[in-house]
Amino acid sequence: MRAVRMTAWQGEPEILDIPVPEPGPGQALVKVAGAGVCHSDLHIMEWPEGLLQYELPFTLGHEVTGWIERTGPGVRGWGEGEAVAVYGAWGCGRCHRCVQGMENYCEQTSAIKSSGGGLGLDGGMAEYMLVPSSRFLVPLGDLDPRTAAPLTDAGLTSYHAIKRSLHRLVPGSAALVIGVGGLGHMAVELLKALSPATVIAVDTAAGKRDLAKRLGADHVLTGGQDTALQVRDLTGGRGAELVLDFVGGQQTLALAAACASSLGEVAIVGMAGDELPVGVGRLPFECSVSVLYWGSRPELMEVIALAQQRRITPQVETFPLEQAPEVYRRLREGRLTGRAVLLPHG
Amino acid sequence: MRAVRMTAWQGEPEILDIPVPEPGPGQALVKVAGAGVCHSDLHIMEWPEGLLQYELPFTLGHEVTGWIERTGPGVRGWGEGEAVAVYGAWGCGRCHRCVQGMENYCEQTSAIKSSGGGLGLDGGMAEYMLVPSSRFLVPLGDLDPRTAAPLTDAGLTSYHAIKRSLHRLVPGSAALVIGVGGLGHMAVELLKALSPATVIAVDTAAGKRDLAKRLGADHVLTGGQDTALQVRDLTGGRGAELVLDFVGGQQTLALAAACASSLGEVAIVGMAGDELPVGVGRLPFECSVSVLYWGSRPELMEVIALAQQRRITPQVETFPLEQAPEVYRRLREGRLTGRAVLLPHG
Amino acid sequence: MRAVRMTAWQGEPEILDIPVPEPGPGQALVKVAGAGVCHSDLHIMEWPEGLLQYELPFTLGHEVTGWIERTGPGVRGWGEGEAVAVYGAWGCGRCHRCVQGMENYCEQTSAIKSSGGGLGLDGGMAEYMLVPSSRFLVPLGDLDPRTAAPLTDAGLTSYHAIKRSLHRLVPGSAALVIGVGGLGHMAVELLKALSPATVIAVDTAAGKRDLAKRLGADHVLTGGQDTALQVRDLTGGRGAELVLDFVGGQQTLALAAACASSLGEVAIVGMAGDELPVGVGRLPFECSVSVLYWGSRPELMEVIALAQQRRITPQVETFPLEQAPEVYRRLREGRLTGRAVLLPHG
Amino acid sequence: MRAVRMTAWQGEPEILDIPVPEPGPGQALVKVAGAGVCHSDLHIMEWPEGLLQYELPFTLGHEVTGWIERTGPGVRGWGEGEAVAVYGAWGCGRCHRCVQGMENYCEQTSAIKSSGGGLGLDGGMAEYMLVPSSRFLVPLGDLDPRTAAPLTDAGLTSYHAIKRSLHRLVPGSAALVIGVGGLGHMAVELLKALSPATVIAVDTAAGKRDLAKRLGADHVLTGGQDTALQVRDLTGGRGAELVLDFVGGQQTLALAAACASSLGEVAIVGMAGDELPVGVGRLPFECSVSVLYWGSRPELMEVIALAQQRRITPQVETFPLEQAPEVYRRLREGRLTGRAVLLPHG
Repeated sequence: MRAVRMTAWQGEPEILDIPVPEPGPGQALVKVAGAGVCHSDLHIMEWPEGLLQYELPFTLGHEVTGWIERTGPGVRGWGEGEAVAVYGAWGCGRCHRCVQGMENYCEQTSAIKSSGGGLGLDGGMAEYMLVPSSRFLVPLGDLDPRTAAPLTDAGLTSYHAIKRSLHRLVPGSAALVIGVGGLGHMAVELLKALSPATVIAVDTAAGKRDLAKRLGADHVLTGGQDTALQVRDLTGGRGAELVLDFVGGQQTLALAAACASSLGEVAIVGMAGDELPVGVGRLPFECSVSVLYWGSRPELMEVIALAQQRRITPQVETFPLEQAPEVYRRLREGRLTGRAVLLPHG
Repeated sequence: MRAVRMTAWQGEPEILDIPVPEPGPGQALVKVAGAGVCHSDLHIMEWPEGLLQYELPFTLGHEVTGWIERTGPGVRGWGEGEAVAVYGAWGCGRCHRCVQGMENYCEQTSAIKSSGGGLGLDGGMAEYMLVPSSRFLVPLGDLDPRTAAPLTDAGLTSYHAIKRSLHRLVPGSAALVIGVGGLGHMAVELLKALSPATVIAVDTAAGKRDLAKRLGADHVLTGGQDTALQVRDLTGGRGAELVLDFVGGQQTLALAAACASSLGEVAIVGMAGDELPVGVGRLPFECSVSVLYWGSRPELMEVIALAQQRRITPQVETFPLEQAPEVYRRLREGRLTGRAVLLPHG
Repeated sequence: MRAVRMTAWQGEPEILDIPVPEPGPGQALVKVAGAGVCHSDLHIMEWPEGLLQYELPFTLGHEVTGWIERTGPGVRGWGEGEAVAVYGAWGCGRCHRCVQGMENYCEQTSAIKSSGGGLGLDGGMAEYMLVPSSRFLVPLGDLDPRTAAPLTDAGLTSYHAIKRSLHRLVPGSAALVIGVGGLGHMAVELLKALSPATVIAVDTAAGKRDLAKRLGADHVLTGGQDTALQVRDLTGGRGAELVLDFVGGQQTLALAAACASSLGEVAIVGMAGDELPVGVGRLPFECSVSVLYWGSRPELMEVIALAQQRRITPQVETFPLEQAPEVYRRLREGRLTGRAVLLPHG
Repeated sequence: MRAVRMTAWQGEPEILDIPVPEPGPGQALVKVAGAGVCHSDLHIMEWPEGLLQYELPFTLGHEVTGWIERTGPGVRGWGEGEAVAVYGAWGCGRCHRCVQGMENYCEQTSAIKSSGGGLGLDGGMAEYMLVPSSRFLVPLGDLDPRTAAPLTDAGLTSYHAIKRSLHRLVPGSAALVIGVGGLGHMAVELLKALSPATVIAVDTAAGKRDLAKRLGADHVLTGGQDTALQVRDLTGGRGAELVLDFVGGQQTLALAAACASSLGEVAIVGMAGDELPVGVGRLPFECSVSVLYWGSRPELMEVIALAQQRRITPQVETFPLEQAPEVYRRLREGRLTGRAVLLPHG
């Protein structure tokens, strides 16, 4: 089968032919319908050898939906052809976090040397994907697996970042979304579906601002010198109770700090890699700053439930698997709106 | 001034002339714009002497909005003519609950022998109302005080009942509203504004079902033998994670128990006075049952914020103060839709 | 191997010889060190056919610790001879609750027709026990598996009932333990280890009161006409923020209702089967009543962590497997203190 | 009366004679029993004009206990001579935070230009203190007001920092206290009273380490190059779920970051003023960093309840009011163990 493979550090992925894997006990083989193209893949391609503990080569694609092709011995309850999402963070399954479904924060991550399929192990940018345990499967119901892939990362990561701050988003509060890309556009939809907060979105690209507006953002800002002042104005001087930074660069982090309220939350989701200094006078009191990573299995089920009710819909552009290199290029250049998804089977 | 007064137990209120009170230190006099007519007043009129610890006579009206007329010595920060809501649960101000703004659950209630204005002390069905501490005032901003009164009880009570269960109302969950009267119609609005839950409303009256539908209920049921089955069908067999019983009678409580999910919540808000037996096999596991009473001061501020953003709007029918007896009659007979409000100044 | 088997409804269990089972893919065979003798087994023996959906025969014993004997294909990360606890609530592994480790509240329970080993499927009152998925195993570390069994039910059930109310147990609050048996004695230990609440224990048996005192209860009451008054006295009139009823009979439920505080919690854990009526005037406002059942997998890990730190220690009396009938008899007659554990291998 | 007054920026306080104030409507005059000497006062003395919005002169002392001397018009429910703590964070009383008792995070702080008595307004390092509203009084019960003062800041600030992370402190978790001074020693006591977490304390001074040990710390570390490694060892490699930095300097913040766990919390309480950079790779995932400030009124009641039950006891050294300059000198030089308290009336 054809697969988009990382074969060298600081290099582009290659499209290669590899054998279709066979599921062992407890495992499942998924026929891939769609595999999302994620900004974090660009970092994997850029970072030098040794920064990640992954071993090469492996197939990319950690945002995957498809159909059960077949299951290994001991797997019960899954029917051939059933539409599924693959929960992408593969932990030890045994530690205190994993048993709560929070495999994204598995306590054994450093021992495991991979974070999941597409992240050190073979992922979903291929015709078939081996899922090492049926516990990583979530039923999609009536959702189309060719366009649902973004729910598993862009949707889930945004959902997790919002859910943990819902108690802050009481009536009268505000949430700020910085960067309306693959994740940010879903964050706007999710905030409107889940909370009564005023939703403010910032992006320098007009097309992304339009998308935010269309998805329900109450206010859309261009991003510039006076953005923080505008946010203070829109929030009665208090700032936003939740700031989601989907970029993580120096400018966006400074904006996040300038816009956050006391008792608020700055969630750094984007992987650009810059830092926000926390100290007396740098941020309002009891404003929490943290770097988030993905979400949990039960949260993925909740995201899928929202999509099934058409409360959220990923904005998707689809491409054949073979165009992976071109799609990564457009992503790097900011020339995609919403999320790009590769379709190995068309 | 004219006032609607309780003068005898198990009797109808009378409209009498009484002097306008004078605010002492820390107090405020409010010119009443609107006073809501609440089902619980009917119970006050029905219950025998001794059941409540209130002393007669007192002016009815515990759901009140108006304008600051003047303030007593030591009150700062309130301007004459400012539109305000009166937080109606008046506690000791000193116990662990009161200092959190939860005066509805004041630990000294039994010592105080009244629950607030209109509930043992003079309330707002009069031209003016004495508010014994400025801490009971909440700014209304641009809301019209003649129609905002229901926010302070119908809105606040519903809001509190929903807010404490928001963690249960994840995507894929359901909430059931039994009884779409003064409180129930606001509960429907609030559920849609605050949560992604599927909202199901039940009422035997067609007009109230229509109102629920108009306010956004996802499903509206008539209430009968197969209602519980219908709710199970609409919730994939699980039942509703939150059941709000705004009646509290034997039939509605039985319906509540039959519709609730495990790990769910049955909130008894209506005062009809019947009981729901909790025991093994009577309710799903870890389904909590409790009787709720009103809400807190910070919650009232949150309700008002929602109304200011037009996310909720009480459905109001207004009447002159003098028609109080007639309005109570219609309420008793179920011939009101939404909430009735008396306007002492027209 | 020898096994304690339920072979007929409304009958006593029999000790029979059955084959040692063989673990299939994903499964594990546990050599049983200890199997706790639980009051709920007595109900299984009493209840008529049809009340439970279990199929006969099956081996009793749902509170089990032991050593890994061998594992089936596809099981990784468990060493032969490793000391383990068996998480006893076996759900579908796939629903929203199961993926959080809350298999005790599996959404598919009714479809599955068993609740776990010893509860419709073969349990641990035997020399070996087949555990149908390695996800039900929890490492015991340095704890002795012959006496640790009560952690998995008596400990876990009490822990869950307490953990969900910890936010209520602020300084100045009180918790009431009704019934100091197998579960109740662990609840006393757990409350002292986890919270600053004043702990009050009630039991009619002097030996059990002594045990409660020894385990740290602040106050120990005999249980009688004036118990509720005593509790009000000990709590400044407020009542207990958490009431744990480990009996669930008419008298204990009435006591629970009379002792609970507003905003409090009455947790019915004991299976005696009586009911507590909830309604206006029957209980303080916003006091929640629910029937609890067991706990979650992550909670079991937390209980085991407490035991490893010697913050809690089950009070255990051990017996050979063959004495099962005699031990059940003593349990029924109230002639056991702490928890009885059967040792199939001595 | 004698009072310790700030009269110039970047200068030492002076002991001056000023008139005893008279309580107006809603106010109370407190005869000061004890006034705690807090490290933050040193910052007030050091910072240049303009950094704080306070107006000079004012009396220092924001950690105060005493007896009601007399109350102004409209104050009810307080008896002359009653022992009280003064809640020191004085907000507007009207905003969403103030009505929950969180006046430490009043939304109007910048408009008010003072944070409370001793912080821009006259505080408690004087024979008498004017408390501008009786809502700032909390009954002390049987506690000695001459030594209870540290409960109101050292105790309350530590308590708040711990309480908001109690959900993280499950069995098996760890908490790290950096700096065992006035606040840190109370944090050790509070952690032991409130949670099952392993408590690790770090201080460079042997006397303070001894105090931590005596108050129940499970492990006490000296603070040096390998401290972070020691903490990783003591926590099974995971790090501490809660890190309380009571210094806030560059070294302690670096230690905090190196010791914190994923999903953990670094609370910066000390005011040394340095910064902790948050970004990908700088801290474990979802470890939150924030700067905390004091606590709420209901939390102060909870701290006092703990002290009344002798679960916590501030370690206090007392001095006459006149020795204030000498005591501040010793505090600056690290030559105090526990908390110093000035006694204006001996």
